[in-house]
Amino acid sequence: MRSLLGDYVLQHLQNEQSGALHSRLFRCLRHAIVNGVVQSNTRLPASRDLAQEIHVSRNTVLSAYDQLQAEGYVEAKTGHGTWVSSTIPDTFLSSLLDKTSQKEEKSKDAQYEISQRGQFLIENAAASPYQWGAFVPGAPDVTAFPHHIFQRIQAKLSKSPQVEQLIYSHEGGCLRLRLALAQYLKVSRSVACDADQIIITEGIHQGIDLITRLLADVGDTAWVEEPGYWGVKNNLNVNGLAVEPIPIDDEGLCLPIESNQISPKLIFVTPSHQYPLGPHLSLQRRKQLINFARENQSWIVEDDYDSEFRFSGQPYPSLQGLEKNSPVIYMGTFSKTIYPALRIGYVVVPKNLALVLRQAATELYRGGHTLLQNTLAEFIEEGHYEAHIRRMRLLYAKRRKYLIDLIFKYLGHTFLHEYDNASGLHLVLKLPKEIDDVALSQYAIQQGVKVRPLSQYYINKNIAERGLLLGFACVDEKQMFDAFHLLRQCLKKIM
Amino acid sequence: MRSLLGDYVLQHLQNEQSGALHSRLFRCLRHAIVNGVVQSNTRLPASRDLAQEIHVSRNTVLSAYDQLQAEGYVEAKTGHGTWVSSTIPDTFLSSLLDKTSQKEEKSKDAQYEISQRGQFLIENAAASPYQWGAFVPGAPDVTAFPHHIFQRIQAKLSKSPQVEQLIYSHEGGCLRLRLALAQYLKVSRSVACDADQIIITEGIHQGIDLITRLLADVGDTAWVEEPGYWGVKNNLNVNGLAVEPIPIDDEGLCLPIESNQISPKLIFVTPSHQYPLGPHLSLQRRKQLINFARENQSWIVEDDYDSEFRFSGQPYPSLQGLEKNSPVIYMGTFSKTIYPALRIGYVVVPKNLALVLRQAATELYRGGHTLLQNTLAEFIEEGHYEAHIRRMRLLYAKRRKYLIDLIFKYLGHTFLHEYDNASGLHLVLKLPKEIDDVALSQYAIQQGVKVRPLSQYYINKNIAERGLLLGFACVDEKQMFDAFHLLRQCLKKIM
Repeated sequence: MRSLLGDYVLQHLQNEQSGALHSRLFRCLRHAIVNGVVQSNTRLPASRDLAQEIHVSRNTVLSAYDQLQAEGYVEAKTGHGTWVSSTIPDTFLSSLLDKTSQKEEKSKDAQYEISQRGQFLIENAAASPYQWGAFVPGAPDVTAFPHHIFQRIQAKLSKSPQVEQLIYSHEGGCLRLRLALAQYLKVSRSVACDADQIIITEGIHQGIDLITRLLADVGDTAWVEEPGYWGVKNNLNVNGLAVEPIPIDDEGLCLPIESNQISPKLIFVTPSHQYPLGPHLSLQRRKQLINFARENQSWIVEDDYDSEFRFSGQPYPSLQGLEKNSPVIYMGTFSKTIYPALRIGYVVVPKNLALVLRQAATELYRGGHTLLQNTLAEFIEEGHYEAHIRRMRLLYAKRRKYLIDLIFKYLGHTFLHEYDNASGLHLVLKLPKEIDDVALSQYAIQQGVKVRPLSQYYINKNIAERGLLLGFACVDEKQMFDAFHLLRQCLKKIM
Repeated sequence: MRSLLGDYVLQHLQNEQSGALHSRLFRCLRHAIVNGVVQSNTRLPASRDLAQEIHVSRNTVLSAYDQLQAEGYVEAKTGHGTWVSSTIPDTFLSSLLDKTSQKEEKSKDAQYEISQRGQFLIENAAASPYQWGAFVPGAPDVTAFPHHIFQRIQAKLSKSPQVEQLIYSHEGGCLRLRLALAQYLKVSRSVACDADQIIITEGIHQGIDLITRLLADVGDTAWVEEPGYWGVKNNLNVNGLAVEPIPIDDEGLCLPIESNQISPKLIFVTPSHQYPLGPHLSLQRRKQLINFARENQSWIVEDDYDSEFRFSGQPYPSLQGLEKNSPVIYMGTFSKTIYPALRIGYVVVPKNLALVLRQAATELYRGGHTLLQNTLAEFIEEGHYEAHIRRMRLLYAKRRKYLIDLIFKYLGHTFLHEYDNASGLHLVLKLPKEIDDVALSQYAIQQGVKVRPLSQYYINKNIAERGLLLGFACVDEKQMFDAFHLLRQCLKKIM
């Protein structure tokens, strides 16, 4: 049986060229200690074991251990073996060595160049390092989730997992979850599908990636909403598509009337709750969009990211379910209803595409996380998911009302964006055009209030409206009150 | 509070145009029942609740429920509410309707076309639907993993998860896992890195994708080993790279001597255990390769997918750790050491690239699975990972020897591929050139023996050697014996 230290010695002993075997072994072990391969206050293997492992005599190992002890690298504890000292003599030496090597590295840096698409991605990087607190948009209250129920189911299913749950999956996500999801989507979102049409993804991003690669080539055009979600745009760019921003108004995406533009291969929309401004796509526009897509051989990709949270009026059914055989691909996620780190989303595709897209997902990403998916399936089947969404809908409605009351009372009615549509996990605070919302949000973040500038969601910054996205879902009233008044002070300072 | 059925009714009631409100509600509820929106033997909401929810009088709901009962769709259980009948009268009608709609769909199929890169991917799809049993290559024995220990740690950590473990992660995988992994890689694989250089990925495929997109553009060239892993080639193709196969011999990748070729941006190699043929990259070739990459501004991507399992002789240290500041990116996975459905891999990048690649991973994939990653970190820290690998190394060595003995005894020594190098989870059964290994493997699979044809791993089929990949890790001796003799009969039939 081999130990990690044994492996290390076997690999490095040959680099030690000169001297008797026990001296070479000593240097090799010292090297392992100084570089942290074996750490302070851990025990070295018994001399007999190490000797056997690295094919030397026990005396050779004992000599090396003696020399290590004499120089203070290890300590012998009678009857308890040989231990690496808590303070290693070379600590200062090692840090010196590190500096030398850093210098060396710098001088050899030249070739670290990234690709053009990589460069573009980094320049347009938009994921926020702030994902919790007032007023992070899109963050659900992850502390309100019934973790104990989920964990109970997970523990039960993980006790003696079946082989099928441990190997690569080839069916686009576990069938049990796809069945539960098909039922849920049919009832709550009027999505017309069966389980075979669903592909489970690692959140919405993987869904975007799968659809883009499988349905569009490098050089094809995609339409996105202006303003719109950065995640879609970045993914389209990195996949080589030309991204065309299309304005939205209070009825959602405005289709270009004169079509002298190149037909888009893909049209990304958020019909239930336009991201980030809020309107839902009107029935007339929905029909117009489907007709347009049919005529132009385009695919509509419906991103239904937080439609579960609608706080007044009728729920809007999905675009996907509106007309039979419409060229609509539907995407959703559990990031907003359960928690983001769960990393489970889904894509619903037309029957004719299902087999091909499932195979493509297997080739590109390989399948797994089957125990987790089974846990989620049981959580849905037992009614916990629906119950959780209902509870959260009430909670978020309350928090949203509280924030709107604050805005109305202290800033005035014009500060709530006129497209607001009583949905989702954030609202948009509208600001006068002369305000630099990027500078404002940077300043607010310094004061501890996490907001995102509206203008950042535009491709064409010249037409960008100014405002702040305020998430209200993950903070209670007390925190909101404090953060709001901090934000008010920031506003006063800037306006 | 809204129910799913309430949502459905609100969405669909307006489609029912004619008749009194209670008749329209009846038709709407019947539709919900016939289409499985509410299922047999589930309870309908109390009439009072539904009435309130959909803003109609309670009498209207009661009338609709009465009519449903009269027509056999629901049953009233005294004191227990109204339940959907176990046999719904329209079942046969509904299946008739389905057939009509399928016909309709077929006639409207025209536009379902996939992209050229998607087409290419599907044509070259190579993921096997068989992932378990004799002789699936690359499948570890997932039943031998100490699931109870992993589950104990997971249950402990999941009991009251912290907010940081539930929201999007931005650090390229949880720090605790990266620290544990840095230590492990340093000791067992001689990889020179600290935790900041590690990015946790969803298995090796996501690592390939991240590197390819960030370091190469559409039209750039990548070199891959011939024969080599299909997953690399498919990912490179879909990312727009030109894929150039480079032959291997018993010392691994043969660098072209005359370099009239286009310099590759990326060079993918499996230095510890060439996939699928087996040789390790010799020291001379390693140095030659690093020099070549330096001169040509290429990146070497070292895929160290199953190096933990080496059964004789010295372990080979990683290529990454051979020279300081070499342009090598190191990739590994837990799919072969723990189980594939875990979906955890890792990429080790040079210090100068770490920040950029971590940011890119966040933009492209978003981070999460933090509870799982923490569980794995503790599993490694407590020594369970190392212990498991040691146990598996012994187990797989035994199984490998058993299979080789069978080959030597019943087929002869020439049937073990001469590049075999006593590593990994599979070996290659070499076959005479005139044998069609694709047909043979198809025939074998029909007989219940899951093998993969060697020629499938070549881009250039004209130079393809013939053989079968035989995985020995996930099957015990008894199964191997039976499967081997079945395979022998297949061979006799074909040869």
